[in-house]
Parts: sequence; structure tokens; C-alpha cells
Amino acid sequence: MIIDCHGHYTTAPAAHSSWQPGSVYPNISDDELRESVQGQLTLMRERGVDLTLFSPRASAMRHHLAPSSWSEHCNDLVHRVSRLYPRQFAPVCQLRQSPGVPIADAIPELRRCVEQLGFVGCNLNPDPSGGHWTAPPLTDRSWYPLYEALCELDVPAMVHVSAVTNPNFHATGSHYLNADTAAFMQLLQADLFRDFPALRFVIPHGGGAVPYHWGRFRGLTDMLGRPPLSESLMHNVFFDTCVYHQPGIDLLFAVISPDNLLFGSEMLGAVRGLDPQTGHHFDDTRRYIDALPLSEADRAKVYEHNARRVYPRLP
Amino acid sequence: MIIDCHGHYTTAPAAHSSWQPGSVYPNISDDELRESVQGQLTLMRERGVDLTLFSPRASAMRHHLAPSSWSEHCNDLVHRVSRLYPRQFAPVCQLRQSPGVPIADAIPELRRCVEQLGFVGCNLNPDPSGGHWTAPPLTDRSWYPLYEALCELDVPAMVHVSAVTNPNFHATGSHYLNADTAAFMQLLQADLFRDFPALRFVIPHGGGAVPYHWGRFRGLTDMLGRPPLSESLMHNVFFDTCVYHQPGIDLLFAVISPDNLLFGSEMLGAVRGLDPQTGHHFDDTRRYIDALPLSEADRAKVYEHNARRVYPRLP
Repeated sequence: MIIDCHGHYTTAPAAHSSWQPGSVYPNISDDELRESVQGQLTLMRERGVDLTLFSPRASAMRHHLAPSSWSEHCNDLVHRVSRLYPRQFAPVCQLRQSPGVPIADAIPELRRCVEQLGFVGCNLNPDPSGGHWTAPPLTDRSWYPLYEALCELDVPAMVHVSAVTNPNFHATGSHYLNADTAAFMQLLQADLFRDFPALRFVIPHGGGAVPYHWGRFRGLTDMLGRPPLSESLMHNVFFDTCVYHQPGIDLLFAVISPDNLLFGSEMLGAVRGLDPQTGHHFDDTRRYIDALPLSEADRAKVYEHNARRVYPRLP
Repeated sequence: MIIDCHGHYTTAPAAHSSWQPGSVYPNISDDELRESVQGQLTLMRERGVDLTLFSPRASAMRHHLAPSSWSEHCNDLVHRVSRLYPRQFAPVCQLRQSPGVPIADAIPELRRCVEQLGFVGCNLNPDPSGGHWTAPPLTDRSWYPLYEALCELDVPAMVHVSAVTNPNFHATGSHYLNADTAAFMQLLQADLFRDFPALRFVIPHGGGAVPYHWGRFRGLTDMLGRPPLSESLMHNVFFDTCVYHQPGIDLLFAVISPDNLLFGSEMLGAVRGLDPQTGHHFDDTRRYIDALPLSEADRAKVYEHNARRVYPRLP
């Protein structure tokens, strides 16, 4: 079985995407929802992906705006899709975050999603400001109420930023990757997992810049007097495989243990085109992994077992 | 001959490093300067590096503070070191930047360094705020006066941030790498090199996350309707080889043309320790490159000829 840990609902009906706070949320029929995911389902079939961990569109979490019921609407829609296709989609929720708003305010919606609607994980935005980085680091105690809830519910968080309003950054071209790298370094500097041994983070986009600079991070760990990464972080931190070319995937698997890698494609997401060098879609990450000389046991970890371990609420 | 394009004067005498605006700048003897670089010279000899492009300590450019004569003092000190060891060090200056201060204010010091003191390049900070990213992107027209001066003087800029005051980022662990990635994406989105065909940027730390995600950047180029990277950027953008493990260097050379790579070590810099996996220093990047099956012509490009092409004022 092949589980894609990183899918976003980027094809939601326009009536949903254009909703604004203060207006009535539109009626969207089941048929509209079914139609909206046919492209995704076709690509999953073509690529042999059985199940996608499906979350709201990452770039449209609207965290930089004032709090509203947007997160609830997004999560409800993802839930409905997962009910229509329960074997293809397992729902992952966005959190109700806004700059300056205590993270405790996000917990009721997290609980509703997990306890009432069967969600298996959430996306946690380390920078709800959208590229201005005004929140404290993920290791700050102000985040701890969320981590207590995640541990109690036994669901992981994918560390994933959203839309960017700072013109220095491009959402999918630099902001996402930089957030991944920043988050990993924050975790390296602190003892968060000593306080929360059961907390699990998935750092997407192949870990940002981290595996490419794995020697740098190992060296910094040493310089900063931190325990080895294998002890301090790698029981709790996982990377997906959203790296869109063979040399990148080769490197990822060369330096990171297969125990810490979850298959992901970010589909339909950041890069939708065909790679002229291969004739295949950039985000058809299964091809790159299939090309690796992995043992069957390691391949099964990356394609399925790690996802089940990190997301134990998966059916 | 082997030229290291990325060295910082991280061992300057304490009397320099502790200078504060308003106080008298200390007298520092030539002997103190000679002594301060013996460690660096020893490492260069041991590693077979002939010449280092030597710039002030990157994390201490003090750009986030109010304007002062700090940049002049730093550049003067680097100049003195380069006069004491003219065959070992070619000077690269820091710019006089501060948040909100027009970049034109940095040009007189750039001119002094290049025209009067023989500097061969400069470090350009895309985020003088120190991790708050309040400046406009590098492609904004407000930077153009600097680019006009760089082209007229025929010197390149290494895109290099400095100290970080935002607790989300660690200078060498995430801020440097993220700035590299952000800068590359800014350049990808705009037509800066159509306006300045002779402008040259070195993006250090192996290009941040860019080579690891080269498929993503090729795909985004296509999605955004931009010309191929080989045409739009790679006549003007170069990466150094500051990637501290063999798999990272393997990837860098697998995806980036040897015409765009300049040998660099960031010595004495970010990571000074010994890699327990190899028994060698993490930042002994020559070992990784020597282990590659490069042609002699390509090796000579990376070790010397590209540096001479990008920094034509080198002796």
C-alpha cells in the first residue's frame, strides 16, 4: 500500500475559495465535491497512490488575516471529501491561527476535527504572519498548550506555512522551504522533545535545505554542544519526499534514515508541470523513489509503515 | 592554483571586535594582525588553498544597527591583512547598509574600497534588518544605484546576510541558508539581468536549498512563464561549494554546471569541528571536490578560472 502524507485540496469549488467572513457560507453539493477531486484521484490511480493525507490548501489558510470561521469551513470541506472517498483520502486539518492570538484558541477546532470528524493530523504554521516571522519559535513555551493537545490526541503536526505577504519571499519557491529549514534548526537548538517525548512533527518539502546541508547541521549540533541528532530529534522529526528531481531524492535517502521518511508528493500543489528532462511530472515523486535501490522493508516503511506510525489514527 | 571565494575574517583582534561607535578606534599593530590570521593561513596551507577572497566577519556586519563607521573599520582591517599577505588574501568589502537607509549611501565606501584599496568584490546583505526582512527584494529598483556602481567597477557581490535578531532564525543554521534561497527565487521572478547583463552575484552556502530542490525551481520557472534558468540567471548567478558533506557536494555538481560553481569553504566560519564520520573538518570542502570524478578542465574552472571570471580584479 502507498500512502501520500502530503496532499492539499487545491481544487476546492470556487464558491468555497471566494467566501469572505461576514457572508453566508455557500451550499456546495456532494456532486461538486466529487467533481473537484477527479483530477487528483486520476493522478493517484495513475501513480499507484492508494491513500492521500488530505489537508486544506496550504497557501490559503488565511492565517495572516483576522480570525474567522475560515478554518472550520476548510476543515469541513476536507472532511466531506474524505467521507465521499474514505479509502482515498484521510483528512488532515488546518489550525485556527492568527498573529498574536494564543495558540490555545486553536485547540477546540483541533479537537472537533480529531475527536468528532476522524482527522488524523494537522498542519501547524510556525509563521502565521505570512513571511514576517513575528511568532515565537516552535520551541517557545507559548506553543506548549497545542503540543499537550497533540500528544493527548496522538496526532502529529506537519510544519507548514501558508500565504506570504512579504515580497521578499515566494510561497512555494522560498517561504515553504525556508520555514522547513528554520523549524528544524529551532528544534535542534532546544529540548522540546524532552518535554514532549511523544510529539511528532513532519517537516515537508524534503526537509527544506536540511538534508542537503546535513553535514552543516551535524557540525552545528556539535559546535552548540547539543546531543546527536539521531538521539535528540530523529525520534520525533520526519521528512516527506517532496523533492522534485532524482538527484535530490538520491541525496535525501543517502543521508536520512528510511525510518524518518514518509512518501509525499504535495499533489496537486506547488509544481504541476512536466519535466522536459524526463517527460514525467515534476511532482511524480514515486518514480524517483522507485528508482532507488531500497530493500523491500525500507520501501514499505517509506510508502506505508512510517505513515502509520506517525499518524496512528489512520484507518 | 586554488582560490577560495568565501573566507571571513572571524579572528580579528578583540580590540576591533569590541569597538563601539563614539569611542576612539583602537591602534592595532601589524604584528597583532599577522598573529590573528596564522590559524587561517595554516589551514589554507594544509588544505592546499592558495588564495582566499577575504571579507569581514559576516555575522558582525552590524547592519541592523544605526549607521556608523563600523564598515570602514572592518574594511580597513581586511585591507591591512591583505597588504600583509597579498598572495594569500584578496580583500572583499562589506557594504555600509542599515534598514531604511538608501543603498546609495553605501556606494562611496564601495568605491573607496575598490578604487583606492584594491578590493575585488563586496558582500551585499539582502536583509539588513537581521531576520525581519523589511527591505525590498533584490530585484527592486531601489537597489539599482548599487548595481550601476558594481557594473561600472566590474566587481561582483556575494549575497550574504549578517547577524540575526529574530529568534526564529539561527545565523549559520537557517538565516544564511534561507537568504540564499530567497535571493535566488527573487532573481528567478524578475528581469534584473536584462537591466544589468554584466551584474554578477555569488550565492553562497552552495546556493542554500536551491540545488537540492533544482527540479522544483525548474518547475516553478515553467509555471511562472519565466525563461529557462540557463538563459535568465545562470550567466549571472554563481554558487560556492560551502556544503559540508560529500553527498551534498555530489548533488551540487550533479545539477549545477561547473561553469557556475566557485570553490569556497566559509573558513574560518560556520562550522569548525571535525566530522566524526570522516575524521576531517566539516569545512574542508576541497576533500569533497577532489573526490568527484571531474575533468581537469572542470576542476580548474571551479578552483580558479570561474573565480577569475567573476572577480576580474583579482591579481
